[in-house]
Amino acid sequence: MIPRSHPRYRSLVTRELLAGCAKSGIVSWEGLTAHGRGEAFDYLLGEKTTDSARLAERIAAALLMSAHHPVISVNGNTAALAAPEIAALQKTSGALVEVNLFHRTEARVQQIEDLLRSAGADVFSGKAERLLPLDHDRAWCRREGMYSADVILVPLEDGDRAEALVGMGKTVIAVDLNPLSRTARKATLTIVDELTRALPEISRACHDLTEEESRQIIASLDNKYLLSEAIRAMTGRLNHALD
Amino acid sequence: MIPRSHPRYRSLVTRELLAGCAKSGIVSWEGLTAHGRGEAFDYLLGEKTTDSARLAERIAAALLMSAHHPVISVNGNTAALAAPEIAALQKTSGALVEVNLFHRTEARVQQIEDLLRSAGADVFSGKAERLLPLDHDRAWCRREGMYSADVILVPLEDGDRAEALVGMGKTVIAVDLNPLSRTARKATLTIVDELTRALPEISRACHDLTEEESRQIIASLDNKYLLSEAIRAMTGRLNHALD
Repeated sequence: MIPRSHPRYRSLVTRELLAGCAKSGIVSWEGLTAHGRGEAFDYLLGEKTTDSARLAERIAAALLMSAHHPVISVNGNTAALAAPEIAALQKTSGALVEVNLFHRTEARVQQIEDLLRSAGADVFSGKAERLLPLDHDRAWCRREGMYSADVILVPLEDGDRAEALVGMGKTVIAVDLNPLSRTARKATLTIVDELTRALPEISRACHDLTEEESRQIIASLDNKYLLSEAIRAMTGRLNHALD
Repeated sequence: MIPRSHPRYRSLVTRELLAGCAKSGIVSWEGLTAHGRGEAFDYLLGEKTTDSARLAERIAAALLMSAHHPVISVNGNTAALAAPEIAALQKTSGALVEVNLFHRTEARVQQIEDLLRSAGADVFSGKAERLLPLDHDRAWCRREGMYSADVILVPLEDGDRAEALVGMGKTVIAVDLNPLSRTARKATLTIVDELTRALPEISRACHDLTEEESRQIIASLDNKYLLSEAIRAMTGRLNHALD
């Protein structure tokens, strides 16, 4: 048991949740380390949604709402951390939810689909094929799902895959706490925020935005500005850490 | 298998090493996440030893060499990442090596001691008692080991324990990639560097430093300066990331 007196109690409890999901197979072992990387960047953000992240979340909502074939790609960490938030966003945005894994086995795909369904998501799980231009199991997806998507939300993504999806002409929305990552720099739009804060904000904006507001906010998209604002938040916190 | 073409190949291979150690019990599941936090900060350092870290490593060597009863505290992550480097530092510094775990079971202590011994370390493993003022298994240590130490090297430490050791009047040398952590701020001396780079630098300095140089370098110790230099390296990298 982690003592409640521990100043990093919440962070440690989330780690235990993920460790439990690693034991059951939902989260890959390497996914635990990837989570830690995110934690460090979130710590630099002050563990809160910045104004620029909130703007990015509104643009994400506008992109999803105006898409013809929006898809939310879900991996093990995303399902473990935010299955209910994924289900809620699917309801407000009408996007397909499809599982895509870095460390892929049929059993893991099944487990993660089950977890998402039990949280209320309607999971798209037709026959998978190797359709993405990648030399790894991440290449697997469904022809009528991710492969055909025009707008795709990829939370906690791998840089290679984000780049491949952009190369296929898709609008890629990343949720990535590291504003320096390849994913962050290659995506069409990058939300530098923690997943369980970001997804409800996107859902809320899906409700709120009018069509006219959506058009305007999409036209304003400047990912380099959004990334530089995220970086500014982090350097600000670093600079004042020793005050 | 991770494809060699992956741009984060080395980092992913280290994660797989740690995941293997988690499967065998050496590394705790939460330890994998803690490693990820470190990775993120090392990424901000450019994954290299800065000048200020090298200075900190020389001061660490001087402190260990001039101690009456130096101890190196080893946890699961430290053993998994750097057992040979710990053994080498023990030889050059003459410090006791003692295992102290956050997620403590007798079986894990035994496994980690075995790993250290197989790497050539002489592990101190007398009877453990609850001697540190902490409400957790981290309180366990040996009376003739850590409890009696005047100088203690705590790589990859927990902030609570670092603070408790300082409170007991010990000189605490931390190795922590997060210059904002409580460990980093509470330690007498903080080395903001990756463990497998830091330990050989300390060993090298143990060989090189004369007694007079040691006295001078210890007198120069200013941990706040060292931390601010580490922060400066990180903000520099963040600021130029989008150039």
